[in-house]
Amino acid sequence: MSIFDANLQQQEANFEPLSPVSFLRRAAQIAPAHTAVIHGDRRYTYAQFYERSCRLASALSQRGVGQGDCVAIMGANTPEMLEAHNGVPMLGAVLNSLNIRLDPRTIAFILEHGEAQVLLTDCGFSDTVREALALIDRELLVVDIDDPMATGGECLGALDYENFLAEGDPNFAPEPLLDEWQALSLLYTSGTTGDPKGCVYHHRGAYLNALGNMFTVGLGRDSVYLWTLPMFHCDGWTFTWGVTAAMATHVCLRDVDPAVVYRLINDENVTHMCGAPIVLNMLAHAPDESKSSFPQRVEIATGGAAPPSAVIETMEENGFNVTHLYGLTETYGPATVCVPQDDWPNLAVNERSARMARQGVHYTTLEGATVKDPDTMEEVPWDSETMGEVMIRGNTVMKGYLKNTQATDSAFSGGWFHTGDLAVRHPDSYIEVKDRSKDIIISGGENISSLEVEETLYRHPAVLEAAVVARSDEKWGEAPCAFVTLHEGATATADDIITFCREQLAHYKSPKTVVFGPLPKTSTGKIQKFVLRHEAENLEN
Amino acid sequence: MSIFDANLQQQEANFEPLSPVSFLRRAAQIAPAHTAVIHGDRRYTYAQFYERSCRLASALSQRGVGQGDCVAIMGANTPEMLEAHNGVPMLGAVLNSLNIRLDPRTIAFILEHGEAQVLLTDCGFSDTVREALALIDRELLVVDIDDPMATGGECLGALDYENFLAEGDPNFAPEPLLDEWQALSLLYTSGTTGDPKGCVYHHRGAYLNALGNMFTVGLGRDSVYLWTLPMFHCDGWTFTWGVTAAMATHVCLRDVDPAVVYRLINDENVTHMCGAPIVLNMLAHAPDESKSSFPQRVEIATGGAAPPSAVIETMEENGFNVTHLYGLTETYGPATVCVPQDDWPNLAVNERSARMARQGVHYTTLEGATVKDPDTMEEVPWDSETMGEVMIRGNTVMKGYLKNTQATDSAFSGGWFHTGDLAVRHPDSYIEVKDRSKDIIISGGENISSLEVEETLYRHPAVLEAAVVARSDEKWGEAPCAFVTLHEGATATADDIITFCREQLAHYKSPKTVVFGPLPKTSTGKIQKFVLRHEAENLEN
Repeated sequence: MSIFDANLQQQEANFEPLSPVSFLRRAAQIAPAHTAVIHGDRRYTYAQFYERSCRLASALSQRGVGQGDCVAIMGANTPEMLEAHNGVPMLGAVLNSLNIRLDPRTIAFILEHGEAQVLLTDCGFSDTVREALALIDRELLVVDIDDPMATGGECLGALDYENFLAEGDPNFAPEPLLDEWQALSLLYTSGTTGDPKGCVYHHRGAYLNALGNMFTVGLGRDSVYLWTLPMFHCDGWTFTWGVTAAMATHVCLRDVDPAVVYRLINDENVTHMCGAPIVLNMLAHAPDESKSSFPQRVEIATGGAAPPSAVIETMEENGFNVTHLYGLTETYGPATVCVPQDDWPNLAVNERSARMARQGVHYTTLEGATVKDPDTMEEVPWDSETMGEVMIRGNTVMKGYLKNTQATDSAFSGGWFHTGDLAVRHPDSYIEVKDRSKDIIISGGENISSLEVEETLYRHPAVLEAAVVARSDEKWGEAPCAFVTLHEGATATADDIITFCREQLAHYKSPKTVVFGPLPKTSTGKIQKFVLRHEAENLEN
Repeated sequence: MSIFDANLQQQEANFEPLSPVSFLRRAAQIAPAHTAVIHGDRRYTYAQFYERSCRLASALSQRGVGQGDCVAIMGANTPEMLEAHNGVPMLGAVLNSLNIRLDPRTIAFILEHGEAQVLLTDCGFSDTVREALALIDRELLVVDIDDPMATGGECLGALDYENFLAEGDPNFAPEPLLDEWQALSLLYTSGTTGDPKGCVYHHRGAYLNALGNMFTVGLGRDSVYLWTLPMFHCDGWTFTWGVTAAMATHVCLRDVDPAVVYRLINDENVTHMCGAPIVLNMLAHAPDESKSSFPQRVEIATGGAAPPSAVIETMEENGFNVTHLYGLTETYGPATVCVPQDDWPNLAVNERSARMARQGVHYTTLEGATVKDPDTMEEVPWDSETMGEVMIRGNTVMKGYLKNTQATDSAFSGGWFHTGDLAVRHPDSYIEVKDRSKDIIISGGENISSLEVEETLYRHPAVLEAAVVARSDEKWGEAPCAFVTLHEGATATADDIITFCREQLAHYKSPKTVVFGPLPKTSTGKIQKFVLRHEAENLEN
């Protein structure tokens, strides 16, 4: 043993398990009167936010919830969701945020699989929840969140959230956390096949990713964060805690209505937002009467899919500054960021947008993100061409999948988390995702990235949304098939679209078929390519 | 065992020991061409900074240095110091930065006590080091840092730093760190009595404090940090790593010459600096011909003692934004920050300065800072009046004192680090240090804070520096005795000063004696009150 290890062990004075709950405790002490949460007419200071979270923890504790127990929540972006993100982990219990867009059968599966003991549920989702509860055998305490801003729905439970809080002690001081590796939350991936998998987060990872977010998007005490991202999505990419770490203000939002978003940006002096590209798309293409200009520059972080260049350009013209993040449920949301390089401001807008559509480099708080050959686990050369799988390693990767050792082992094989995304690495080290493994189209022996074709389609002035999948082709094996939604009032024929693509892409990459109409989406807003693939195979000609 | 613990253990994909060395590795990958370090005409990119650090690690490794071994450095603020802060911990070895102002006997004590195997030493300090080396028995590899910007001195060692680097492999990949609790560095407190104590830092704490600094002062990629703070001082308050975490630019500086500082602020577009109040004082009172105006606002963080209001005011007029930090060597430097409250901008300048002189609240990355009665360990009421001892707890507190279990146990008793600083807590939770225990003056049964008297003295237009200690008094037991240095060319009599104080302070708090002349300082620039106390007792009348 070295002299530097002798009698220098961890003890209470110099070691504390990292936990994102510490951020709220600190904010309540330092900035008790600062506005923490806004929801319509409701406004809570940090003192109130903390008190309500402590009451929730206390009320749950009195009902028998403790270390390692699971509390599910079917919630919109309301103050109760933020309170649950603190009150539940404060007890050492595990918060399971449910995707509100899921069907009753899947919700029922999750409640059983995650072994929830309590369900906090927003009355706005009572139709789904009633059916889900009818499908399960578990005894569950159901507590209704009766938000006056919800439309429709009814109360289902034993009691109401506000009455439940009233049961709790505002000065409740739970047992301290013993281990930062302890489970913090449980989030199910919305798989396209099979049962969803439950990603288990730990306190350490959420603490670090929240800090990572804080300086990646530059949150400070004067920041105002608008919740255009669902909080059930990777715990709001850990911004649920990151905004609090900065002692900034949370502005809640139930639904992404562009007119409401633009109004809140002005009324509440919003400085930061997050959202999938579809949210940017809605904001960029909102009707003029819904838009309004604002004096501040709004930082908007996007992820889940690369933002099309055209959308970045329009957003920048509208007063937003777009940052591209990349990650998965397994990585607490954002794991990489497309950090702008010194010379980018001098590039032409479309070239700059193309750079910004890259997934970029690993977060400060992550150990590494790279592209490897999944068979050899060798890194691909940084040549912008060689494809491999994006792999991620570090402290902001989940503990693993709940009750699914096989899936965990497979996801972590070789010491890296395998994302399933195919990518290249550019000479500047930046990762660019080319496709999900199954989204590659192989035509005449050549690989075609469906993303590249989609990127081109988005540049067509009439195109609002686009998705490209493989369609069987007698001659080439497969050929790209495009599904396209046009802007309201815009017109374009299939030939127009194909000609436009051929002007910009190699001919073999251009769609051979174009289908018009709305695109099928998953509960998290991702386009369901497997539906389109099926549709493509059944097209008449 | 809960379902959330089963088969969800830490593994390579999801756990990595936190280490500040990861920041340089990331910067070298992401921003290889960005300017990392500037020292006179020398400029290193992040790729070069990393390569030189790897070479250093490799060269040390070839000489037998590894996990738990100690490498001492007697360095000025030069690139070599920054390289040592990465190359040494990269190996799992421990960096012991020596205070360049110490005497040879103390340096010799430290080299023996810390069991250094290698000494990297700047030729500028050869007089001290030669004497120190003559006093010790250890076999030491001595490597000379021959900085062309040093004045005087000579080479003492077996070889020169650049030749040493040339021995190293630029692609050296050391064994990964196994434990974030592992020792990272060793720093001796400059005690006023007895042998210095060696504070052992761990990787986890330095990682977290570096991040804490990064967002406390708002470092980003475009930031330029000027090294007016000695890097041997708590590893530059962990800014050695924090600036790198932000991928910002380090500007080295051997000596704090105000004319050079003002020139560099302009030439290098400096955005951030740190320094003890004495540095602010020097910059605020530099002769007009040394000063220059600059377009940017420079953030300057200060600590070590509360900045006098008058100095804050002058600095703000000169284009600086002052942030007050507080901490000790035992807490990696900064542990608290005086976060400006929402209503402060509306306060009168002197009132605002008085608020800013408070030590404030604990860092985001720390667990807690409070004021307790050291006997009962009860928190004092937040009444601005009840005195207690500042206590600190969390992940940015040292492992303990090297080979000194008794001192470690005593410092950490009751689960908190005892700072020895006496303070009150204000109703807004802010800590304000009133005095070191031994700096309290008890006069006629009333406690007098020597800081409060000094604060008043600093407001006198003729006063450049001031220190107040207790002097025995037949009538009152003790009475305040002031030692004062006047601005060049300024004049004031003892009576002038006493009258000025009586106008602003309770009479019993005003100095009964005023002594003019230069103030004795410790090697880190702190005024040596024990010298003044001795002097006060031996005054003629």
